[in-house]
Amino acid sequence: MSQATKTAGLLLFPGLTQLDLTGPYEVLANLPGWKVEIVAKQAGPVRTAKGMVIHADQGFDTAPQYDLFAIPGGPGTDDALTDEATVEFVRRQCEGAENVFGICTGSLLIGATGLLRGRRAGSHWAARHLLARFGAEVRDERMTKDGKFYTAGGVTSGIDMALRVVADIAGEEAAQQIQLQIEYDPEPPFRSGTPFTAAPHILARARAAGEARRPIREAAVEAAAARLASGTPG
Amino acid sequence: MSQATKTAGLLLFPGLTQLDLTGPYEVLANLPGWKVEIVAKQAGPVRTAKGMVIHADQGFDTAPQYDLFAIPGGPGTDDALTDEATVEFVRRQCEGAENVFGICTGSLLIGATGLLRGRRAGSHWAARHLLARFGAEVRDERMTKDGKFYTAGGVTSGIDMALRVVADIAGEEAAQQIQLQIEYDPEPPFRSGTPFTAAPHILARARAAGEARRPIREAAVEAAAARLASGTPG
Repeated sequence: MSQATKTAGLLLFPGLTQLDLTGPYEVLANLPGWKVEIVAKQAGPVRTAKGMVIHADQGFDTAPQYDLFAIPGGPGTDDALTDEATVEFVRRQCEGAENVFGICTGSLLIGATGLLRGRRAGSHWAARHLLARFGAEVRDERMTKDGKFYTAGGVTSGIDMALRVVADIAGEEAAQQIQLQIEYDPEPPFRSGTPFTAAPHILARARAAGEARRPIREAAVEAAAARLASGTPG
Repeated sequence: MSQATKTAGLLLFPGLTQLDLTGPYEVLANLPGWKVEIVAKQAGPVRTAKGMVIHADQGFDTAPQYDLFAIPGGPGTDDALTDEATVEFVRRQCEGAENVFGICTGSLLIGATGLLRGRRAGSHWAARHLLARFGAEVRDERMTKDGKFYTAGGVTSGIDMALRVVADIAGEEAAQQIQLQIEYDPEPPFRSGTPFTAAPHILARARAAGEARRPIREAAVEAAAARLASGTPG
């Protein structure tokens, strides 16, 4: 009998922000009794937003139903939101999984399945308001849990949330041992990690840097929301 | 003229702890004017400690001299420490780089080149004492800087240190903008991130979990230290 009795799947797609995936992966892969897989439309190499190429272990056609399904975000979310095969795979996995874990703008992809309607959910600070288009109750916080749906804020919040997920599914001591193994005793050198604490001119620059992509993302969310409203998600 | 005027190289090898690499990668890849590459013995796919496969952009034979050279760690460090080609490549890059950045047990690899002799340096909490075998002045802290050598503690400390490196090479405002982009406002759910704060029985379990590999690591460090003492590093 195999030692791994539970499986976690992390979605990979082109243009994903790799730390959205790799942070939670490190936490989950250290959990005894769990097997962690990366799943993309096709198995094999996928180029992430800044160029790093990561391999998917499974394609949509070969992936099992995961006990825990995690959906990272990033610039590539915009294309994924309007890709029928991706939204349908996410819907199917989220429906069947015991727990669902959205990281950063990955929660928009969960939203596109309709499964966040009436649920509390969060996302990257620059995108979380868009969750409302999918009927979610938007939360301005780093970590939000509603039923089996865990949603984290931007990028690094996936590490905090992964430890909370592990605590819930395997106990606090398992999470604490992983936290020690990855020496997670953060000392951020500045207090610039949220729009509420960053200096106003730093926030303004960050917003300006995202301005070019804003209409693209909004159009993708509108298209996904329209498809959902028409009753043909995925 | 290319927009990227500086290059950062991150070392990849089999059995590396992927978050040692992917955390700093995310920070550095968001720095305007910098190109980030992953470099391994050969270009192409490399399997990391928990199974994730990441591609190297360059092989040792094609890599340029990087302005910033980063060395992650992980279980695979043991084999890398006694691999002549790897130690020689690390030595050459560290000598030529403007700044050197060791993450987790990656600092042992820098130590194996002899370049940490008489320098303050840190590593993963379970391995940092081994730096003394390479003549380093071991520090019990999350982040240590001595001259151009930045060394971070275990795994996640690479994210904090990467922000400090960016602040030093590109200014605090650049680091703050990246911190906001990756929403790095950590909320670890427990205080279990260091041996000093973890519950004693959690620490005991973590030490027990590392016990099987301890003699292998010590033997690798001894072999690397002996080669260094004999005057044939690399």
